[in-house]
Amino acid sequence: MSAIQHLAQELSRFPGIGPKSALRLVYHLLKRPKEDALRLSQAIRDLVERIRPCQECGNFSEGDLCQVCGDPDRNPSVICVVEEAYEVGAIERTGRYQGRYHVLGGRLSPLDGIGPDELNLRGLLDRITSSPGLVREVIVATNPSVEGEATAVYLEHVVRPLGPRVTRLARGLPVGSDLEYVDGSTIAEALAGRREM
Amino acid sequence: MSAIQHLAQELSRFPGIGPKSALRLVYHLLKRPKEDALRLSQAIRDLVERIRPCQECGNFSEGDLCQVCGDPDRNPSVICVVEEAYEVGAIERTGRYQGRYHVLGGRLSPLDGIGPDELNLRGLLDRITSSPGLVREVIVATNPSVEGEATAVYLEHVVRPLGPRVTRLARGLPVGSDLEYVDGSTIAEALAGRREM
Repeated sequence: MSAIQHLAQELSRFPGIGPKSALRLVYHLLKRPKEDALRLSQAIRDLVERIRPCQECGNFSEGDLCQVCGDPDRNPSVICVVEEAYEVGAIERTGRYQGRYHVLGGRLSPLDGIGPDELNLRGLLDRITSSPGLVREVIVATNPSVEGEATAVYLEHVVRPLGPRVTRLARGLPVGSDLEYVDGSTIAEALAGRREM
Repeated sequence: MSAIQHLAQELSRFPGIGPKSALRLVYHLLKRPKEDALRLSQAIRDLVERIRPCQECGNFSEGDLCQVCGDPDRNPSVICVVEEAYEVGAIERTGRYQGRYHVLGGRLSPLDGIGPDELNLRGLLDRITSSPGLVREVIVATNPSVEGEATAVYLEHVVRPLGPRVTRLARGLPVGSDLEYVDGSTIAEALAGRREM
């Protein structure tokens, strides 16, 4: 196989990149200066050599602790639980959260053989029990999907007996949305969760 | 800058990949086995180390001559002229062309400072004059754009005096198109180029 076809094949493993777009990316690389491609190659290598899970929370990290866990200004009494490490960034970008995180590395999904033992759950329970009274609140930020909900219910079940409050992100209308196009279950959640003005 | 942000920045240099899709690709790499990423990194390096222009026609090649120029079964009396090397693949995939190619490496575009000297034109004229009488036809396959047309006219002007027939790809309705949605100039070309049934 030629170097062109080989790279196109590797690129088409990415979600959303089909064989045609993969070829277009290869040709783009061939049109640019060679240094651009070598820099990209090195950046990919650096990524997988440097990034590893934070020992505390499971977030992406370049050291033993991630940026959040290594920051003494972050409130250790609140832990926000997400399914995947890349969801931490979505919450961080809001700039409205000052607590810590915990990354499960997935969601409960019995059909795919993913039970509690396949998730980074033990670590969460250890964080709560190792310093009794420190963790006051666990915010469940699993996705609003069937598996995410099941995971949230399970988390509540195992965390609440240890002491912390267990909360979850509000359901409701997304900002900027149009009532006409919002699905019925979201409207039902928004109604159920309505607040005084 | 973290390894994640750095790779995302490199990826977002590709056409059609914005900052958000770039991050999604990075996270995909982090989810997959490390070997996948290392293989991709190596494939990019191999690409730019191995691929160079064919000495005869300017097509992508892993040796001095590309696969077409190195194939004695390809008819040397017909040369199809394209703007970019990646357009050779589009014609090859039809399986209907048995001649050779010549890659200009661009199109005439005076506004961008691209004149005849910036294109691989000298090479084409040399191929025609070095074996007098060998090249019988030059098929101009530049793009149907303003610059592509200007390049086609210029090519005809310099190639015809050397002897070969100069032809160009037909203009007309794309196969599978719908008359209602085809632009006016294409329909005009299709009318002008109509053929007996």
